[in-house]
Amino acid sequence: MIIIAEKINGSIPSVAKAIAERDADFIKNLAKAQSEAGVDFIDVCASVETAVEVETMKWLIELVQEVTDTSIAVDSPSANVCAEALKSCKRPGLVNSVSLEGDKTDIIFPVIADTKWECVALLCDDTGIPRSSEKRLEVFAGIMERAKGYNIDPSRLHIDPLVEMLCVSEDGINIIVDVMAKIKAQYPAIHLTGAASNISYNLPARKMVNQAFVVLAMNAGMDSVILDPLNRDMMGLIYATEALLGNDEYCIEYINAYRQGLFGTKK
Amino acid sequence: MIIIAEKINGSIPSVAKAIAERDADFIKNLAKAQSEAGVDFIDVCASVETAVEVETMKWLIELVQEVTDTSIAVDSPSANVCAEALKSCKRPGLVNSVSLEGDKTDIIFPVIADTKWECVALLCDDTGIPRSSEKRLEVFAGIMERAKGYNIDPSRLHIDPLVEMLCVSEDGINIIVDVMAKIKAQYPAIHLTGAASNISYNLPARKMVNQAFVVLAMNAGMDSVILDPLNRDMMGLIYATEALLGNDEYCIEYINAYRQGLFGTKK
Repeated sequence: MIIIAEKINGSIPSVAKAIAERDADFIKNLAKAQSEAGVDFIDVCASVETAVEVETMKWLIELVQEVTDTSIAVDSPSANVCAEALKSCKRPGLVNSVSLEGDKTDIIFPVIADTKWECVALLCDDTGIPRSSEKRLEVFAGIMERAKGYNIDPSRLHIDPLVEMLCVSEDGINIIVDVMAKIKAQYPAIHLTGAASNISYNLPARKMVNQAFVVLAMNAGMDSVILDPLNRDMMGLIYATEALLGNDEYCIEYINAYRQGLFGTKK
Repeated sequence: MIIIAEKINGSIPSVAKAIAERDADFIKNLAKAQSEAGVDFIDVCASVETAVEVETMKWLIELVQEVTDTSIAVDSPSANVCAEALKSCKRPGLVNSVSLEGDKTDIIFPVIADTKWECVALLCDDTGIPRSSEKRLEVFAGIMERAKGYNIDPSRLHIDPLVEMLCVSEDGINIIVDVMAKIKAQYPAIHLTGAASNISYNLPARKMVNQAFVVLAMNAGMDSVILDPLNRDMMGLIYATEALLGNDEYCIEYINAYRQGLFGTKK
């Protein structure tokens, strides 16, 4: 499982405060703790006003790189900010994200074309998030066509089918499972990703829904996820699910992760 | 999901002590607490020496019936004890269990033939637990043939495909998922059951493995489970999974269960 650590995000109040006060230690500690949880990417999202976003992103990225070698996920709703901020990264990371909205792919894909950068692509376009499975697969086809134009291999893409709130769903996550299965059948090397917590908006005891969702999504082919890696129960469930799905013979990785203290009762 | 509450079991030290001391209040409290967790059956297993097993089972069953109307799962490795103990039950419950071992079905099936009793059937025979999917399905066919002989409808059977320890598995739970899918395809009305905790023997942080297993097993068709209903996280995950699988439109049952206090932070 590819883990994208979500905690350095200016939409979280404590992080917004640290950014406003330029509290470097707070950011560095958050980067270090997430890196020690064995993640693949540390997401960096400033969530500040446009005029200072690039500058803030660069400040955050440099702090993260001072304390860890973990690759960075450069996260902004603006493709131009992503394109600018990724220049501060010492090594290839992940652009979070493009979609078929506006000129996002036209800005990002040429920048990462001849690099090892990976990219999250959301299955939405200028009309929003398509309701049906068919329409999402059309958006997917559009993204793949553009990626092909820039020689970006499917294995560098993390497709986020965009999970909607379970509380308004009549058939659970059936649409998402269907979309994921069809994408994986077409491109076995592609990554399928998603935020672990969007599913549970407006529901009580959200962690129950988030946890069950991640287990079921992994079963449906999701191999990349955006979450809080300091959530020990979620991490334990992910390692357990890998073993149950037959991806961890004799539970060796599960047992190692436990011994490293990534989940289970804190010692 | 059909929940079979497992806590009145003489193999649990505190219960063994209560049985030895004939501590009626302890047993009644356990029955009441499990019943209030909204379970479908309360399992009763004496786990005492054979000479006093029937008498002990009857004592336990009467205590449970004093405090709740929840149906009882009469649980003993001896089919004769089950056949004798079920006479003490005020209403039809669940026999736990038969298999193709010895004369178990020959003892139990005639007793429950013209009743509303349900029955757990384990997919093993005198040679033990079959390794392959094919062999387990042969045992299943044998059980169904005998059930048919007594006119026991598939909807009264809870088939337990017998989950083995994950720590010795090379391919996770693939065999079990395969067996469950084939059984459900053949008999859509049959129940698929299992103990939530056998999967995690010899592993650390067992609850992580148990929880992920139940979610994946539900996805594969398991609709009945033997567990501790006072484990609030497990109960929350089960309600969440029902909603994610599309069995709980708009999460109405999930929200109701939360409001009843069955999971989430204790109030």
